[in-house]
Amino acid sequence: MAQNIYDDPAFFKEYIQLPRQVRGLDGAPEWPSLRSMLPELRGSKVLDLGCGFGWTCRWARAMGAATVQGIDLSQNMLSKAREFPEDPAITYLRADMDELQLSTAIFDVVFSSLSFHYLTNLSGLLAEVNRALTPGGSLVFSVEHPTQTAPRNNSNWIKDSRGGEVWPLESYLREGPRTTNWLADGVVKQHRTMSTYITMLLDAGFVLAAIDEWGASEEQIMESPRWENTRDRPPFLLMKAVKPAI
Amino acid sequence: MAQNIYDDPAFFKEYIQLPRQVRGLDGAPEWPSLRSMLPELRGSKVLDLGCGFGWTCRWARAMGAATVQGIDLSQNMLSKAREFPEDPAITYLRADMDELQLSTAIFDVVFSSLSFHYLTNLSGLLAEVNRALTPGGSLVFSVEHPTQTAPRNNSNWIKDSRGGEVWPLESYLREGPRTTNWLADGVVKQHRTMSTYITMLLDAGFVLAAIDEWGASEEQIMESPRWENTRDRPPFLLMKAVKPAI
Repeated sequence: MAQNIYDDPAFFKEYIQLPRQVRGLDGAPEWPSLRSMLPELRGSKVLDLGCGFGWTCRWARAMGAATVQGIDLSQNMLSKAREFPEDPAITYLRADMDELQLSTAIFDVVFSSLSFHYLTNLSGLLAEVNRALTPGGSLVFSVEHPTQTAPRNNSNWIKDSRGGEVWPLESYLREGPRTTNWLADGVVKQHRTMSTYITMLLDAGFVLAAIDEWGASEEQIMESPRWENTRDRPPFLLMKAVKPAI
Repeated sequence: MAQNIYDDPAFFKEYIQLPRQVRGLDGAPEWPSLRSMLPELRGSKVLDLGCGFGWTCRWARAMGAATVQGIDLSQNMLSKAREFPEDPAITYLRADMDELQLSTAIFDVVFSSLSFHYLTNLSGLLAEVNRALTPGGSLVFSVEHPTQTAPRNNSNWIKDSRGGEVWPLESYLREGPRTTNWLADGVVKQHRTMSTYITMLLDAGFVLAAIDEWGASEEQIMESPRWENTRDRPPFLLMKAVKPAI
């Protein structure tokens, strides 16, 4: 069972003030890159794993998706999602992705933003997602970048001997839980390497179609200079995997 | 044109004393992992890009390869390779991999150990390799791990605030040349991200089949405790890519 930090009142109070919650997809700087990995959605059946407030579910419908299923573990998140005007083609379901079971070949596109790094049973979920996709269907997802989740003894940038800021990479190959104090104390994420994410996809039957270690563009850094350090250590890893059409 | 550091006398004098040159494949701790990615070699036609002293060429023949073509830019390396007992099924060729042109569908397996990070035109080479492979053929290669080649202003482990050793990751997304002083001054390597290596493979028509960020095993660390820090920041990236059979 995944930790349900989003139903922790202290965490949630901070979380809903993040730009990406207040402003939706426009508040997520990596969204244009992630969006560019998605196939044409018109007429397709979409599953959003870790749908949160439903921003992407509503966007997918606006793009012409036939139906959208949003799944999240957090009651807080789903309550917020349901505050938006109802759309009968969007359904929300509360479920634990570590134990999710899906029917065969019922979705054309599966999407997930910054959720998989909370899961302990990601390989099980990927097998379910592969089964639930129609042949030729796509999985597009983002996670925190493995170099960001790696350190066990460091959580912030440090100075090198020249006074420059560097990211203290350590424990990269030591996979497992990492407890951080992001918005609230004791948030548990699962550190996995790049190669583990990719190997899990291949083992689940996917073909890797695209990969992006996201960092801010020059334009985004002009707007938000604090994102300059994303060029030093990318915060997000984005991937697209396809179920072979056979 | 790639830098030909191996024909620098000062560099070469140091280089030939490395365990992996003195002891051959047994002196390369990542060799068992790389070897496990190779397909059955019996009867196959093999190309080794950056063959050095020819250790892998001779090993491939011992494994039953029909023919082995070794390519290297360094006259020093090829002279050393030719000192070993002659095998008419092994041919050595001096060539610059940045400008290499290959015939169509002439190799079943292409191998390269720790050479691609010297090349400026890797995407061009990968297109040539894809063309030179028979359908279903494999490319297996290793490079220095991108987190190792990334730093522009740091070349050694540093201490964090607790006195632990961390790798000073910076400039990861700033790709391009890195000048290091490894064995000799002014060795130029090309830093590329994980996703760039993978995207170049996909763009060249390959399917990614396996990936390994190599770190020493528990047994290897028992034997060589200095390799403990490979668990903090892997030194090598290993990949297998396949040309679709179709």
